[in-house]
Amino acid sequence: MDVIRQANAEAIKRMKQANPTLVGIGKAKEHIPEMRENLILHAGPPITWARASGPLKGAIIGGLLFEGLAKNEEEAARMVIDGEVDLEPCHDHRAVGPMAGIITSSMSVYIVEDQSSGQRVYSNISDDLGDFLGSSVRFGVFEKPAIDHLHWIESTLAPLLGQAIEEAGHIDLLPIIGRSLLMGDDCHVTMDAATPLFLRTLMPGLLKACGDRETLTKIINLIYNDGLFALNPIMATCKAITLAGNNVNHSSIVTVMARNGTEFGIKVSGLGDQWFTGLAEIGRGQLMPGLSPSDVNRDMGDSAITETLGLGGTARSISGSRQDATNITLQLYGITEAESDAFEIPALDGRGSPMGFDILKIVEKNIRPAVNSGLAHKHMNHPSAGVGFLHPPMEAFVDAAIGFGDLEI
Amino acid sequence: MDVIRQANAEAIKRMKQANPTLVGIGKAKEHIPEMRENLILHAGPPITWARASGPLKGAIIGGLLFEGLAKNEEEAARMVIDGEVDLEPCHDHRAVGPMAGIITSSMSVYIVEDQSSGQRVYSNISDDLGDFLGSSVRFGVFEKPAIDHLHWIESTLAPLLGQAIEEAGHIDLLPIIGRSLLMGDDCHVTMDAATPLFLRTLMPGLLKACGDRETLTKIINLIYNDGLFALNPIMATCKAITLAGNNVNHSSIVTVMARNGTEFGIKVSGLGDQWFTGLAEIGRGQLMPGLSPSDVNRDMGDSAITETLGLGGTARSISGSRQDATNITLQLYGITEAESDAFEIPALDGRGSPMGFDILKIVEKNIRPAVNSGLAHKHMNHPSAGVGFLHPPMEAFVDAAIGFGDLEI
Repeated sequence: MDVIRQANAEAIKRMKQANPTLVGIGKAKEHIPEMRENLILHAGPPITWARASGPLKGAIIGGLLFEGLAKNEEEAARMVIDGEVDLEPCHDHRAVGPMAGIITSSMSVYIVEDQSSGQRVYSNISDDLGDFLGSSVRFGVFEKPAIDHLHWIESTLAPLLGQAIEEAGHIDLLPIIGRSLLMGDDCHVTMDAATPLFLRTLMPGLLKACGDRETLTKIINLIYNDGLFALNPIMATCKAITLAGNNVNHSSIVTVMARNGTEFGIKVSGLGDQWFTGLAEIGRGQLMPGLSPSDVNRDMGDSAITETLGLGGTARSISGSRQDATNITLQLYGITEAESDAFEIPALDGRGSPMGFDILKIVEKNIRPAVNSGLAHKHMNHPSAGVGFLHPPMEAFVDAAIGFGDLEI
Repeated sequence: MDVIRQANAEAIKRMKQANPTLVGIGKAKEHIPEMRENLILHAGPPITWARASGPLKGAIIGGLLFEGLAKNEEEAARMVIDGEVDLEPCHDHRAVGPMAGIITSSMSVYIVEDQSSGQRVYSNISDDLGDFLGSSVRFGVFEKPAIDHLHWIESTLAPLLGQAIEEAGHIDLLPIIGRSLLMGDDCHVTMDAATPLFLRTLMPGLLKACGDRETLTKIINLIYNDGLFALNPIMATCKAITLAGNNVNHSSIVTVMARNGTEFGIKVSGLGDQWFTGLAEIGRGQLMPGLSPSDVNRDMGDSAITETLGLGGTARSISGSRQDATNITLQLYGITEAESDAFEIPALDGRGSPMGFDILKIVEKNIRPAVNSGLAHKHMNHPSAGVGFLHPPMEAFVDAAIGFGDLEI
């Protein structure tokens, strides 16, 4: 076990040495490794069209309509089924996307660079319409307003965001996340502090770059009304850090937790790029008016990369009272390797957030991580179903532990 | 004692029924009762030039220079000494101002109206230069940049703020304060949440009203860099509520706590407009680099109206650790009449903030309120000395209790 312990310490050390900063915006096809026109990146572990859930299918259709590769829903579906278009996980391309996590070649992405290693990771730009409904492509909606909004992001928002980031120089998101946690955000499904703090870093550049008052007003109102606008670059920040801890031989630390709407998948530092999966749970929580739990899709999105690094449900579960959340966090110290230096739990007087889930501890103690998440409607073309909480399937950790055991024996 | 108990319950009831909203911006001379050209309003209880501290004198000079009533420091001092200019407390004109609290006739003020009674109260606009130094008139600085900034406020900022408030309709600050408390602000000396939330309500109107990008950039950066930009309208909100509880016969509830840099004064609901005073303490806390406690002026400012209503040091003292702050708040429940419905203490699982200090309980239990405060340098024309904490002098409460006893016997 000493080998594993040392390997885990090394993985944590590398993660703590990571120094990710937001350095710019660029087109996916020009930055994301092996990105190509007929490739659609999606959240979670690999999946086929046949096994994909309604909202993931809807979002894939949305991506193909946006790219102009398909003229309609039927053509889009056929292209994927016929293999004219490939589906691959964002995570396998050093990228992350919330909910369906669709990234296509023409989309602009945030570029986050680990200044310690030079390694770059990517996330898309929030496609929220600011309508408080979640009627956007990432929830599986491919109506015209959602697609038009993607085009507006490319024509207007992304270039201005890029200039704002350039004007700000490198934007260091870690202090923003740390401060926001202390202000009560979970930094996954609640960002009442993080989004305004992120906006503040962008504001001088936005004001300088954007000469058109109407556009400026639209952008600022959109960011305010989105609320989770900062989620995407925060996810990329978490990805950059967990990636730094990946591929340490013999380490049993989880470096990815992600869901494709059907399966929940994890990656483990010492097990290379292999996914270990299980059926994703259906989140319980606060549903949009008129919906019942049977309307909710299985868990979806790469945003559990926040939980992987100690944010979201790890830091402040939304599963119950504030005390319940604290109890969950306390329990999670039992299945993690370390405590964060960057993220402090306000309810625990600033104790570092649980960091580095250990598959061996998870299996041994039979305690699973806790995930906060947006909920998609199980049918495509429906807006968000609400927000909730859930656990990863134990199966994924057991499979990984078995694989790990094989290696270790 | 039943008479007092009933009177205090009535005072609390009236305060809880108050419904203050920010309705606009206007010139002091056109709105503040009995405002006139040769009147300077200041923080705290009444004071003469002879007894005024350095920073209060500096701020009075600043006000006279701004008005063009005096050409220089000497002339300004002479005008006050000769009685050509009157000094009166803001509070005696239904107004409040932080630190020196200088309001002159040409200055623009926030107008906060209690929608339940129609009563209006006023506060000036933050004159912070956004330089992180506090080299502004309210700290007793009357250098040219500080005076120029007051002119810029009148020519540029105030009209745009007025249009932004009009565009927003009535701005309800109570939910902003409540939310900010839960996000960790004390809402007196820390407003990391409150100022951005206030800015958010102003932003659509600012973007609409301000066609000049350079001006817009200056305003937004100023508000971000001020940090306490929301303090003034929050003080007016607190003043509107405490005023609603004033003048209830036989009530022993404190409705004003304010300091003029020499004396700390209070008013009591059942004792009309009379001030009860004692020597103000010198705050201890975090000083600006190079300063020692002997550089700090006695406590100054109307901003203790926040503590009077359950914010600031009442909700989250900065006198020590987070646990110390919680212990102080718990102790203050022993000298208050009620608990706030609008303000919740996050460290106490949302328990309402202590509300309605009772002079009889304060004297009987020998426990004084706790105040967070900005600290002025004891010499005029010096920037801020830092931030600290202190207690009101027991003398003021004892005097009031004696006065109260006379009435009650």
